[in-house]
Amino acid sequence: MNLILLFPDDFTDSDSTSGTVTLSDRRFHHIRTVHQPEIGEMLKVGVLNGKRGQGKVVALTEQQIQLDVSLETEPPAPLPLTLVLALPRPKMMKRTLQTIAAMGAKQIYLINSYRVDKSYWSSPLLQPEKIREQLLMGLEQAGDTVLPEVHLRKRFKPFVEDELPAIAANSRALVAHPYLAQPCPAAESTPTTLAVGPEGGFIPYEVDKLKECGFDAIHIGERILRVENAVPVLLARLFPL
Amino acid sequence: MNLILLFPDDFTDSDSTSGTVTLSDRRFHHIRTVHQPEIGEMLKVGVLNGKRGQGKVVALTEQQIQLDVSLETEPPAPLPLTLVLALPRPKMMKRTLQTIAAMGAKQIYLINSYRVDKSYWSSPLLQPEKIREQLLMGLEQAGDTVLPEVHLRKRFKPFVEDELPAIAANSRALVAHPYLAQPCPAAESTPTTLAVGPEGGFIPYEVDKLKECGFDAIHIGERILRVENAVPVLLARLFPL
Repeated sequence: MNLILLFPDDFTDSDSTSGTVTLSDRRFHHIRTVHQPEIGEMLKVGVLNGKRGQGKVVALTEQQIQLDVSLETEPPAPLPLTLVLALPRPKMMKRTLQTIAAMGAKQIYLINSYRVDKSYWSSPLLQPEKIREQLLMGLEQAGDTVLPEVHLRKRFKPFVEDELPAIAANSRALVAHPYLAQPCPAAESTPTTLAVGPEGGFIPYEVDKLKECGFDAIHIGERILRVENAVPVLLARLFPL
Repeated sequence: MNLILLFPDDFTDSDSTSGTVTLSDRRFHHIRTVHQPEIGEMLKVGVLNGKRGQGKVVALTEQQIQLDVSLETEPPAPLPLTLVLALPRPKMMKRTLQTIAAMGAKQIYLINSYRVDKSYWSSPLLQPEKIREQLLMGLEQAGDTVLPEVHLRKRFKPFVEDELPAIAANSRALVAHPYLAQPCPAAESTPTTLAVGPEGGFIPYEVDKLKECGFDAIHIGERILRVENAVPVLLARLFPL
């Protein structure tokens, strides 16, 4: 937790751009066991979907911590990215959502694909509050405040035919695919729609549907990477620092 | 497993650049349950530290599979990298070794750092055969055959003072550090020594020691990433496709 995310409800004053917050939940326990601050110490804080700043520890008991908060700086710039990702297997779900949130993606479509096991769609990890929990952890890790939006699309064809053309319009539309592909283009701070398949890749039919929708197939070299590594590598190559 | 790694011992003929192999271990079970090949089908294979090629399925029973192997192509180019990484916590150890191997690092030093918990050094995952197992899985994922070398260094100061200068000589020596750092330099296919700290980062003393040894501090943006994401991002930024 490199930033303690605050919610408007945490503020005991009416104003949620500065004032006092009292924390007694997961965040309090994390601060107490990991940060172990003294009275007067400054902690990095940020308000959900708002600014970042400092929280001065003004009271600390066994049950709660009180911070005097001042907010000055904007959150880090988001990536100009819409990520279209084949639903990861449940074991990788938490980690993937944290990674995506930490790296600054704000629009995420989790979609079906031939190689996505049907059972993945009934994972309890897909409940909105579970997804939100992982996204918040990614933001806290990265020092960001802006919650990504995650959209679930359980049917590939209607999504790609009816919805994706508008999503990808006026963007650099790319599908990561190891075969019959161009090398990943140079980093550019330009609106981008990036589709990433499941372990084993999109099947040829799916790649063709994406190409019909204007997507170019790109690769990141001869090595086949797991989705958990491919996504950071792709985002690092596609966007400048 | 995008490539089935073969060992010289697997070959029933004297020649280990082509010939017949019989597999009945973990690889056989993986092929049988995941690939589910028919007789005559071609599987991607490679010989440890050697060439890659095709294995034609010539026999398949409940106990074993027999492949007729021909080897033609070199493994993917390695990264010109020596990676100096603070020992990851055991929970992340397997995944980290797989990632590093998959991405093509061949020289890896796992070192101590102030924020590495002493207990991590007694993890059974650090036994040579356990490390090797994870490296092989990374190679199989990426389609590589060349086993990385992993060196364990339990004392930071003697390593940095006595050993690192020779390791880093004539290379681009960089330490990933989010603070007081230059942006990550442009991708270049040049020998590089990259030091990456533990969760929470190297402490100032350690960064200073690395700087004394000629390392420049670089950052990968405002977002603080976990080691598991920072390493793929750094390697993607530092080396061209």
